Amino acid sequence: MTIYDDRWMGAALALASRGIGTTWPNPGVGCIVVRGGVVLGRGWTQPGGRPHAEAMALGGIDARGATAYVTLEPCAHESARGPACADGLVAAGVARVVVAAQDPDPRTNGVGIARLRGAGIDVATGVRAGEAAASMAGFFSQQQRRRPHITLKLALSLDGSLALADGTSRWITGPCARAHAHLQRARADLMLVGSGTLRADAPKLDVRVPGLEGRTPGRAVLGRGPAPAGWQHFNSLEALCQSAAHHVLVEGGAGVAASLLRADLVDRLLIYRAPILLGGRPGIADLGLAQIAHDRWRAEPVVALGPDRLEPFTRIR
Amino acid sequence: MTIYDDRWMGAALALASRGIGTTWPNPGVGCIVVRGGVVLGRGWTQPGGRPHAEAMALGGIDARGATAYVTLEPCAHESARGPACADGLVAAGVARVVVAAQDPDPRTNGVGIARLRGAGIDVATGVRAGEAAASMAGFFSQQQRRRPHITLKLALSLDGSLALADGTSRWITGPCARAHAHLQRARADLMLVGSGTLRADAPKLDVRVPGLEGRTPGRAVLGRGPAPAGWQHFNSLEALCQSAAHHVLVEGGAGVAASLLRADLVDRLLIYRAPILLGGRPGIADLGLAQIAHDRWRAEPVVALGPDRLEPFTRIR
Repeated sequence: MTIYDDRWMGAALALASRGIGTTWPNPGVGCIVVRGGVVLGRGWTQPGGRPHAEAMALGGIDARGATAYVTLEPCAHESARGPACADGLVAAGVARVVVAAQDPDPRTNGVGIARLRGAGIDVATGVRAGEAAASMAGFFSQQQRRRPHITLKLALSLDGSLALADGTSRWITGPCARAHAHLQRARADLMLVGSGTLRADAPKLDVRVPGLEGRTPGRAVLGRGPAPAGWQHFNSLEALCQSAAHHVLVEGGAGVAASLLRADLVDRLLIYRAPILLGGRPGIADLGLAQIAHDRWRAEPVVALGPDRLEPFTRIR
Repeated sequence: MTIYDDRWMGAALALASRGIGTTWPNPGVGCIVVRGGVVLGRGWTQPGGRPHAEAMALGGIDARGATAYVTLEPCAHESARGPACADGLVAAGVARVVVAAQDPDPRTNGVGIARLRGAGIDVATGVRAGEAAASMAGFFSQQQRRRPHITLKLALSLDGSLALADGTSRWITGPCARAHAHLQRARADLMLVGSGTLRADAPKLDVRVPGLEGRTPGRAVLGRGPAPAGWQHFNSLEALCQSAAHHVLVEGGAGVAASLLRADLVDRLLIYRAPILLGGRPGIADLGLAQIAHDRWRAEPVVALGPDRLEPFTRIR
């Protein structure tokens, strides 16, 4: 039996989160190397996807006999961009490797774990695997479904309006909620708006958080009409699904929200809810539902953001 | 300085809550009599408003030297329905009286406290007064504003719809939320629907909670058209405001909600929120707002009700 403490996996997950939004085309992985309760090394996937978390954590330390906690199965394939992490862990002489999620990439899937075990390393798998898969949802989506993970962001009043009847929408939520929403942009690979919203609002879609200005992801528009310079343009949902982006953040409006929901393409819902009543324009256009469907959305804990609340939901599949 | 423990006032508030919805035309008050850490007597306002909480708590006990905690200033006026509670406390020989809210009724307002002090009783006032006033919001509303306290109940999807586009609304929320909503009916004096909802849905508006079937309050309709037998009928918001009810619970629909909100007559908002998206009929009709108004609603803690959530808000005035 492998001896491990899954709180160290919590530390590895926290390290992984540092890379989210910067590691494409690779997943954002975290790794921590521990021996006798002492942290020897820590690492996370670097911008652009290399070096990997394990290589960062093992660099410059003596890891012999240690336990490495890693949020994704160590890769088994060498590439021009770096050696295989499974080989790196063997070479470092670690005694144990604790893995959260198995790598769905067919070049590694199970092969990394087998190579570690073949070298006599004690391996535990599936430790906090759900949290790890959630933290790499975009990578898993591309590997398993061949489409991006899609998050729909909505800033709504209590009654579900996104604007007054005359279109006024500045500001529904307060500065704390808006800053949080900008942080979500920094964690995405691509931001999307509908062509109607692009024409009506000409959103800048930048990350207006001090220190994160450089973290603005790509921009895209869905629908008819020309795209601004530098923006991607999707004519259809099918074209959007063919994007190689891991995480797409949908920024509105009501029409694109409804069309994504009708096609059941929304994986996560971030509702920034202001304690106001507007009785104005609905945040989602007619979904054309024939019956009320329960059990589609799993609520995550509500986050207080000044006077507003973030209500996150995950699509149950 | 009066020595007291405000946790006993918490007990008195809990006793008071037992009468809510049954004590009209009197407020629902709670009283607990304590000496040396031992509870000697407990009482709350009885159905129809008499006997008062103090009379119930003092009955059959020797309260000499004890402390009485009462959520509302003891009444100073005798009536055909019973003696003044201030006199009853004096006669019982209590040493101390701890009062939460002062009685806004001009027959008592300050007179009850003065009479206790005049008899040599130590009196503390304003102890958890905010909670007490909230528990008697309807009585305070009638005394201070000459209109009922109005609670608007909405059962909404995440996007603020109360029904699918075709009108289907069974069921948005689950059995736990519906039972909680029925309990709110038992705490009201009058339930109100708009004439459109009456015609479209013919709601029964009864309390379908085992053991509380007898607690169904009066029913009323706002708007044009005839009222069913036994229902009150209000032609206008002005007529509604002249009702002597303490607590009015508004059960829909979107039109009556909007007209009450436009007139700023909603004091409390109970949103039963289901984790579903409908993209259907909005829960509130156009409010005709010219600007987005913040700082109108104070959020109370969210209550989990099975898969749904109750989001209560109080109008900041």
